[in-house]
Amino acid sequence: MTDHGDDTRPRPGEAPPRPGAAVDTVQAPLDRASAVPLYHQLYLVILNQLEVGTWAVGEAISTEEELAERYDVSRTTIRQALQQLVWEGYLQRRHGRGTFVAEPKVHHGTDQPFGVTLYLRAQGMRPQWRLLGMAPMLAPRRVAEALRLHDGQVLEIRRLLLGDDEVIGFHTAYIPFPLAARLQASHLMEGNSFFHLESGLGLKLGESRRVIGAIAASETDAELLETEVDSPLLQIQRTTFSADGRPVEFLHALYRGGRSEYHLTSHAGGITADVQAAATPSQPRTAKKE
Amino acid sequence: MTDHGDDTRPRPGEAPPRPGAAVDTVQAPLDRASAVPLYHQLYLVILNQLEVGTWAVGEAISTEEELAERYDVSRTTIRQALQQLVWEGYLQRRHGRGTFVAEPKVHHGTDQPFGVTLYLRAQGMRPQWRLLGMAPMLAPRRVAEALRLHDGQVLEIRRLLLGDDEVIGFHTAYIPFPLAARLQASHLMEGNSFFHLESGLGLKLGESRRVIGAIAASETDAELLETEVDSPLLQIQRTTFSADGRPVEFLHALYRGGRSEYHLTSHAGGITADVQAAATPSQPRTAKKE
Repeated sequence: MTDHGDDTRPRPGEAPPRPGAAVDTVQAPLDRASAVPLYHQLYLVILNQLEVGTWAVGEAISTEEELAERYDVSRTTIRQALQQLVWEGYLQRRHGRGTFVAEPKVHHGTDQPFGVTLYLRAQGMRPQWRLLGMAPMLAPRRVAEALRLHDGQVLEIRRLLLGDDEVIGFHTAYIPFPLAARLQASHLMEGNSFFHLESGLGLKLGESRRVIGAIAASETDAELLETEVDSPLLQIQRTTFSADGRPVEFLHALYRGGRSEYHLTSHAGGITADVQAAATPSQPRTAKKE
Repeated sequence: MTDHGDDTRPRPGEAPPRPGAAVDTVQAPLDRASAVPLYHQLYLVILNQLEVGTWAVGEAISTEEELAERYDVSRTTIRQALQQLVWEGYLQRRHGRGTFVAEPKVHHGTDQPFGVTLYLRAQGMRPQWRLLGMAPMLAPRRVAEALRLHDGQVLEIRRLLLGDDEVIGFHTAYIPFPLAARLQASHLMEGNSFFHLESGLGLKLGESRRVIGAIAASETDAELLETEVDSPLLQIQRTTFSADGRPVEFLHALYRGGRSEYHLTSHAGGITADVQAAATPSQPRTAKKE
């Protein structure tokens, strides 16, 4: 394809390029007389192709070069259209390897009281933990700070969160001794990410503080999360406090950026809401937590 | 350096490898008889070097190969130590280019009522908006869904958030017409990320919903955020509702993962807190929002 222009446009009776493709939009030229900008036309064309299943989830779409030739538009126009589709989560960039059809996102967040496993269930996935290991270790610096320890020992717990056998997240939790001494492996193989603290150790929990960031996957991260090295990961660091204000766990959680998103609702004067909530006695939690 | 072992360890009278380096720890061998695992010893050694300023912020630290030779340990041990330091935010991976001393993180989140600009001020930075453009456009699909529009026009507002002249975030906001018609450029050059809605358009705001994710920077993103293509970005999509429940803005915000983190406090039974807060009349916001 070294030639721009009409040769890629449909001719009467011409066969579609592949079965199931949306012939009318895949090959239709953009309307240069329209008030709708070219990049928005192209955005709609590609969106339509995604909706009719021109490409499978995880498949690479046409390259920028191919699209620029097919629709006879500039790379800038192509990028504007693709950028919007990436932002909206329809497509996903992979590391200079091109643009791929995005997987649907797994939602989690603070909007549900029963944690990530309920989110997974609500999305029709069977949640499951795979315990990789529990070991006492010297608390790393930030962990010691979060747990207000002085060179103390912590129990490090490493586990994978799975949804329908797919790895969703990699959790590394640190619990101070002597609290951690009573923890059993069985507490770590069911329930949500607070289960081992509440049901396992019988703690009444209070506030939890989260710091959410984006980091590039190391080789170890990538291997555990079954993704590519340097791909973007959603990082959540959570410090959990008991109802009486003691830090009881520091959690470092990683999720594949292309597969997870964190949902959060707040209100105007959100700090007011938080303060009010903190001053309100916790409701008895009668529902079985999972 | 093809030879393992003692030759990289300090000899009496030997000059330190560079001015300001922590000689005692940089060159000291690890204690193989200690109960402290080698990776934790190495973690502490590198942490100490970071604290004494062996490397500047943004500078590459020694490569895995160099560290493996200097301390005569396996690559696995090196990676365990570096991994911990990356997780804790001391170091930052860059795209197969190595491991660098991380910049301090800019905090934002929902824990402060007055938004990202107050967070910046609290961290000693002067916040500033740079308006890139305002233009009417057809709402992209997700934007139309979030704003409950049917093929409607929206005003697209693109602006950069700066802290002390450094680019912190890139915001693309979409406001439906006719609401957007009264918006003036001046509303977009001061205050927090709700200022134009509250003070500019005189809206009383209610709930806002955020979806937080991690994506790889496109060429456009990277250029605007002054970072590298494919580096991890923190993505926040926010839908803001008026107090009477109408969606009034969809915001797509991007921040450099290496420079930003999002803080969030919730409480046990968080959904209860949210529901209570929603049922509680908003407090009058007497403080001037910025």
